[in-house]
Amino acid sequence: MHVLILGAAGMIGRKLTERLLKEQRIGSREISSLTLHDVVMPALPENASFPVSASASDFSMPGEVEKLVAAKPDMIFHLAAIVSGEAEADLDKGYRINLDGTRFLLDAIKRVGGGYKPRVIFTSSIAVFGAPFPDAIGDEFFETPLTSYGTQKAMGELMLADYARRGILEGVGIRLPTICVRPGKPNKAASGFFSNIIREPLNGVEAVLPVSEEVRHWHASPRSAIGFLMHAATIDIAKLSNRVNLSMPGLSVTVGEQIAGLERVAGKNVIKRIRREPDQAIMRIVSGWPRNFDTSRAKSLGFTTAEKTFDDIVKLHIEDELQGNYVA
Amino acid sequence: MHVLILGAAGMIGRKLTERLLKEQRIGSREISSLTLHDVVMPALPENASFPVSASASDFSMPGEVEKLVAAKPDMIFHLAAIVSGEAEADLDKGYRINLDGTRFLLDAIKRVGGGYKPRVIFTSSIAVFGAPFPDAIGDEFFETPLTSYGTQKAMGELMLADYARRGILEGVGIRLPTICVRPGKPNKAASGFFSNIIREPLNGVEAVLPVSEEVRHWHASPRSAIGFLMHAATIDIAKLSNRVNLSMPGLSVTVGEQIAGLERVAGKNVIKRIRREPDQAIMRIVSGWPRNFDTSRAKSLGFTTAEKTFDDIVKLHIEDELQGNYVA
Repeated sequence: MHVLILGAAGMIGRKLTERLLKEQRIGSREISSLTLHDVVMPALPENASFPVSASASDFSMPGEVEKLVAAKPDMIFHLAAIVSGEAEADLDKGYRINLDGTRFLLDAIKRVGGGYKPRVIFTSSIAVFGAPFPDAIGDEFFETPLTSYGTQKAMGELMLADYARRGILEGVGIRLPTICVRPGKPNKAASGFFSNIIREPLNGVEAVLPVSEEVRHWHASPRSAIGFLMHAATIDIAKLSNRVNLSMPGLSVTVGEQIAGLERVAGKNVIKRIRREPDQAIMRIVSGWPRNFDTSRAKSLGFTTAEKTFDDIVKLHIEDELQGNYVA
Repeated sequence: MHVLILGAAGMIGRKLTERLLKEQRIGSREISSLTLHDVVMPALPENASFPVSASASDFSMPGEVEKLVAAKPDMIFHLAAIVSGEAEADLDKGYRINLDGTRFLLDAIKRVGGGYKPRVIFTSSIAVFGAPFPDAIGDEFFETPLTSYGTQKAMGELMLADYARRGILEGVGIRLPTICVRPGKPNKAASGFFSNIIREPLNGVEAVLPVSEEVRHWHASPRSAIGFLMHAATIDIAKLSNRVNLSMPGLSVTVGEQIAGLERVAGKNVIKRIRREPDQAIMRIVSGWPRNFDTSRAKSLGFTTAEKTFDDIVKLHIEDELQGNYVA
C-alpha cells in the first residue's frame, strides 16, 4: 500500500509518519511506500523499512497535487491547512489553501480514472460548529462556523462527502478535538493556553492562564489523534453510509480540572508555575468555542481515545514527549 | 435603490421581476433601477416605472460578475444555478456554476470596497438535507446532502454566512420548499409530478403520478416564494446574528392530500385526469427527500406563506396562472 501524507511537516503529520514507520502496515495491509508532502520540506525519517520520499510545494497551485496523485496512492491523509488565525487574517489565502487545495486534491483523484479509488482521510475541526451550543454537541447538530477556517473545513467536509457518494473516492472526515498537550513551543493561538499551562510547568517554566478555571473545553491527546487517523484508515467504509464526517471522541474538562489533573500527576510545585493573567480578548474568543460533545456515532464505529481522564493526558505527555521526566 | 437579479430569466426570477415592477419599492425604499441578468437574455419588461436593463453571460466565467457588481447594486437576488439533475449529470459544471459562480459574486463584492455592503439574498434549497430525517427537520439539523446540487447549495450557504460575518455584505440564505404549482410545461425533473398532477388536469390534460399517494413532501406556492424573497430583502439583518441561512415555511402534505385538495377546488372530473403509473426509479429518489420541517426560526422572523392549506395552493395557481379559468 502506497501512503501519501499532505501536511506531513506539521505536528500531526510528523506523529503520523512516526506511527506508520513503527507499525509498517495499516490494518492488514503492509505499507510499500510513503510520500510526505508539505509547503516546507518534511524531514526524511531514518531507518525506514520501506521507501519514503518527501517533497515541498504549494498544493493549492494548479497542477501541484496532480503530481502527487499521479502515483496513485492507495491511502491519502489530507492534513494540510493554514490555521485558524491565518485564515481569519488573510481571507483569500484561507480559501485558496483550505478550500481550493482540498478541491484540487479531490478533482485530481477524479481525473485519474481507470477504477482508481483511494481512501482520503480529511482532518476537519470542531471549528465547524459555532455558538450558541447545546450542552453537548450531537452527531446531527448543524455547522455554523464563526471563523473562516471553520467555514473552509465545513465546505471541505461537504465536498468530501459528495465525491465519496459519487464513488470517486472513499472519504472519512474526522473533526479533531483541541489537541492537548500540544508539544513544542508555546504558540500565540488563542487556544494555546490549554496546552501551555500543562507543558510549560512540566518544563519548569511559567505559563500564563488568560481565562477563568470555569472555562470548559474539548480535548484529546496527540496519541488519540493519531489513533483516530489510523482507525479511519481501516474502518469498513460501508458503515459510514453517506454521513462520512464525524466528530471524534474527546474529554470535556474545565481548566480547573486540567490543573487538578496536573497536580495529581506532577505535584503541587508544578501547578505553582501557572500565572493567572485574565485576557478579555481571549476570554471572548473562547466563549464561542464548543465545550462538550456527544460522539455516539464515532464511538459506535470504534473510534476511541487513548485517555480516560485528564490525568491520563498529562501522563501521556510525560511519556510520549518528555521520556518520563519533568521538573517537579 | 438599485436592484440586481442574477438568474432573472428563470421562473422565480421572472415572478420576482413582476413583483418589483408592481410594488416599485422594497420596504420603505423606492427602486431606482433594476438590472436583470441570466445566462440567456431575460425579457425586458414593458411599462416599467424605473430603468430596467438586461444582460446575458456566463457569470461563472472570471470577470463577468464584476461587471454587474461594478454598478454597486444595493440589493442582489442571487437565484442563478443549474438545477439538480444537470449538476448530478455534469459534476464539473455544477461546481463551476453553483459554487464558483457564487464565490465570484461574493469576492466581487469584497473587492469593490469603500464601504460598499449590499444585501445578498441567496436561494438555497431543501436539497441541503439528506435522509434519514427526523419527522420534521428542525432549524439546527445538519446538512448532509445526497446530491451535488445540494452540496453546492450548502457550500454557498456557508460562504455567504462567512462573508456576512466578516462584514463584507448582508447575507440571507433562504431554503425554498419545492415550488408547487410550478407553472409552465411539465418537466422531467424527478419532482415534476408534484406540480404536473395539479397543473395538467386543470388544463384538461392527463398527468402521470409515478409514486403512491402516501408520499409526503414539502411545498410552497410561487407567490409564497416571492414573498420570502421580499421579506428577506427588508428583514432587520441584526436579528439573524451569525445564522443567516433559514429553512422557509411550507406545507407538508401527502400526494393523496394534494389530490383531495384539487378535487375540493376543481371537482371530481379534474382528478380523473391523474393516471397512476408507478415508477420505481422516481420512488427511490423521492424516498430520500424531506417530508416535513419545523421552521420556527423563520416564522419568528416574520416569514409567512401565502397559503394555509393545499386547497389554497390550487386556488392561487388558478388565480395567478390561469386567470381564474380551468377545464372542469
